[in-house]
Amino acid sequence: MTETTNLLDAMTRLIGKENMLSSIEDRICYACDGSKQRHIPDVVLRPQSTQHVSNILRYANTHVIPVYPRGAGSGLTGGAVPAQGGIVLDFTQMNQILEIVPEDLTATVEPGVVTQTLQNEVAKYNLFYPPDPASAAFSTIGGNVAECSGGITGLKYGVTRDYILTLEVVLADGSIIHTGRKTLKSVTGYDLTRLFVGSEGTLGVFTQITVKLLPLPEKIETLLIFFKTSEDAVKCANQVISNNLLPRTLEFIDKSSIDCIKGYKQEFQIPEGVSSILLIDIDGKEESVKTETALIEKIVNENHALNVVSAKNVKERDTLWEVRRAISPALYNIAPFKINEDICVPRSKILEILQRINDIHKRYPSLKVANFGHIGDGNIHVNIMYDEGNNQQLSAENMVEEILRNTVELGGTISGEHGIGNVKSKYLSFEVPPQELQIMKGIKYLLDPKGILNPGKIFLQ
Amino acid sequence: MTETTNLLDAMTRLIGKENMLSSIEDRICYACDGSKQRHIPDVVLRPQSTQHVSNILRYANTHVIPVYPRGAGSGLTGGAVPAQGGIVLDFTQMNQILEIVPEDLTATVEPGVVTQTLQNEVAKYNLFYPPDPASAAFSTIGGNVAECSGGITGLKYGVTRDYILTLEVVLADGSIIHTGRKTLKSVTGYDLTRLFVGSEGTLGVFTQITVKLLPLPEKIETLLIFFKTSEDAVKCANQVISNNLLPRTLEFIDKSSIDCIKGYKQEFQIPEGVSSILLIDIDGKEESVKTETALIEKIVNENHALNVVSAKNVKERDTLWEVRRAISPALYNIAPFKINEDICVPRSKILEILQRINDIHKRYPSLKVANFGHIGDGNIHVNIMYDEGNNQQLSAENMVEEILRNTVELGGTISGEHGIGNVKSKYLSFEVPPQELQIMKGIKYLLDPKGILNPGKIFLQ
Repeated sequence: MTETTNLLDAMTRLIGKENMLSSIEDRICYACDGSKQRHIPDVVLRPQSTQHVSNILRYANTHVIPVYPRGAGSGLTGGAVPAQGGIVLDFTQMNQILEIVPEDLTATVEPGVVTQTLQNEVAKYNLFYPPDPASAAFSTIGGNVAECSGGITGLKYGVTRDYILTLEVVLADGSIIHTGRKTLKSVTGYDLTRLFVGSEGTLGVFTQITVKLLPLPEKIETLLIFFKTSEDAVKCANQVISNNLLPRTLEFIDKSSIDCIKGYKQEFQIPEGVSSILLIDIDGKEESVKTETALIEKIVNENHALNVVSAKNVKERDTLWEVRRAISPALYNIAPFKINEDICVPRSKILEILQRINDIHKRYPSLKVANFGHIGDGNIHVNIMYDEGNNQQLSAENMVEEILRNTVELGGTISGEHGIGNVKSKYLSFEVPPQELQIMKGIKYLLDPKGILNPGKIFLQ
Repeated sequence: MTETTNLLDAMTRLIGKENMLSSIEDRICYACDGSKQRHIPDVVLRPQSTQHVSNILRYANTHVIPVYPRGAGSGLTGGAVPAQGGIVLDFTQMNQILEIVPEDLTATVEPGVVTQTLQNEVAKYNLFYPPDPASAAFSTIGGNVAECSGGITGLKYGVTRDYILTLEVVLADGSIIHTGRKTLKSVTGYDLTRLFVGSEGTLGVFTQITVKLLPLPEKIETLLIFFKTSEDAVKCANQVISNNLLPRTLEFIDKSSIDCIKGYKQEFQIPEGVSSILLIDIDGKEESVKTETALIEKIVNENHALNVVSAKNVKERDTLWEVRRAISPALYNIAPFKINEDICVPRSKILEILQRINDIHKRYPSLKVANFGHIGDGNIHVNIMYDEGNNQQLSAENMVEEILRNTVELGGTISGEHGIGNVKSKYLSFEVPPQELQIMKGIKYLLDPKGILNPGKIFLQ
């Protein structure tokens, strides 16, 4: 018998044949994620319970088989790709919302719950799960926790780590632990919960997650503001914040991104001469939204805005956001290949990093660059588009490297919200010095001594 | 030469005689903290720089000498007491605010900065450092980070961990590491920052801290609401939150606590028949504070409030809060000894835990009990007062044990904000199961293999 046959037999015994996909057609579906790599796993397992996960990990640990936990596979840095074959653990079947407790402002879910589904369900109780990655419509809470997802609401509401109260985690050896408490405060021992949040599936596998919720804001107002230059837009964004305002979202779109979405929607026309856009959501109680919106309109008019459009109703708001969300896919109209970086700098350094990116770009004239993103929290998506041939991919990779080095030099981070995965592991040392890396590896060894959990991710081997 | 003489000589060489206190009179001043234990250290060192701290730790690690980092020594669970003698590292000389960057919403400080000092300084820029422990007027940011302090603003604003962006940490062997980035988002490798936050000085010593700031709320309104029963007050607090409101503070005071503060201030009179009080701060933009305050007044009136007092100005507000802050010391009027617990339960369980405390109390009739605290986030300070003699201390400790067991049974935590220290280490296993404890100990061993950092804390030896 081959090793794979052994594995399939064991898994049939441990979790049932009906929860296993082993045909090549099925396995190919699990070979990729948002990073567009392709590594075919030996088997795909679809656990139905914590006990299933525990059984699988105990076996995998004994036989030293790589295990790749996977939510929707929408991650952009290869977190879910089975880089070394082995087992993909597909969590889409463990997708139950186990409880919503409005009085405690908490919900407990299985990892396969889609983020938007949770957001919709808690909204029925007038509650709100704030982290809102662009992938919310299809990404899962488990994946969000593994990557510590950010999104458009980070400035005002923080990121995934700020909303995770407890985790049920299956460790590499199959044992099941519980971290945190379903309370808004707890300081009992070390903060294991946040050690697992953002650990990208390398320290343990989540099987239950309790999140903190907030009251749903009464009202959201959306403003779209056109500027002649990126500098005007960035300065205006800074002015908003220095006027003591924390909008729900504060998004920036540059000229190249604008060019891609022109004509995307009939009802969405961008005037000539616009080189930069801010998209701002203001949320809260009705009265305060009104006051804050008026104040922002005043600020943008003092900051050389060409025009301000406000969404008159939910439909118009959805249109504006639909256009914003269309940017990323629309960039493929420029060239067939794209690298999407998610650098984050202190906001005071945004103009400087944009300038440096521009300068670097001059040395790579055959590439196209578009910048957009969450300017409110300094998190800019730098997109580099390239064609096949002429070493363009290599040029793009070299350009990424230069941008990341400059980002770190300005006090920024090479990943604001996408994680490291296997796409960025070669850049990790730009930001994390050897001793800090050693500590991280020490923790990895402590929790997964055989290295079966998502091997090939975060760290260079 | 004795070991102590060796130590003093080495420290004179490494950090200078002027930064060392070795007389018994001086050392006694560092023997205690808010937990009222008494352990006299061999020497008190007052580092002036990160390099000093590094020098000290390298020596201490080589010679296996216990090191006890200390801010203001205001902690309530013994975090700063030199339980095994050795070195106290007094951080009060490293008390500089190194930078405030309004545009980035950040401030970088040395660990000895008093929390209130930071709050005052950033307020000059219209900014706000939200964590607000009762000790803010004298406790230090370093101590706050070590304990992951909470306070009165936890419901709306979270706790210390939510505001720490970067740490400079000196490890047990004297090496200096840097965790996190001064950006609002970062997901590069494991979250070492939050591993150190709340680690109570057992994993490393902080020498620089960058905190996240928020825009200062425009307005704070304060309401004091009197109730006939605790049940009415708790139900009303729940009603406030289920009406989609997140007040800045939502404090609860029970009958025994009220009895202690009656007559504390001439201008503060509590009507007859009041058995429970809610103290609520509402903050934000002027208009929304007005609307929310009106809404809360409506809710409290529908929930059997006897009377609502609103502070007409800052002076009246300060008076109300002065009275609230006077509760804890005033409890000594009941009996000369006090245990102050800081349990936290899911808010839906508050009435049940108060009922259970009441039932347990019936079995300890010679003790006095007072409950008050941050009902908004489920964090109740249970105070048990006792006299000398008649085994009252033992009774009080037995009662604490029963309360903590019941808290955990209801899904709560044995420490919402005070930490474990050496006061609660014997109860840690009530909440943290053996395997989770083993992981914590593994992390401790990884970072401090000789166990020189704050030995005797968190874990039972």
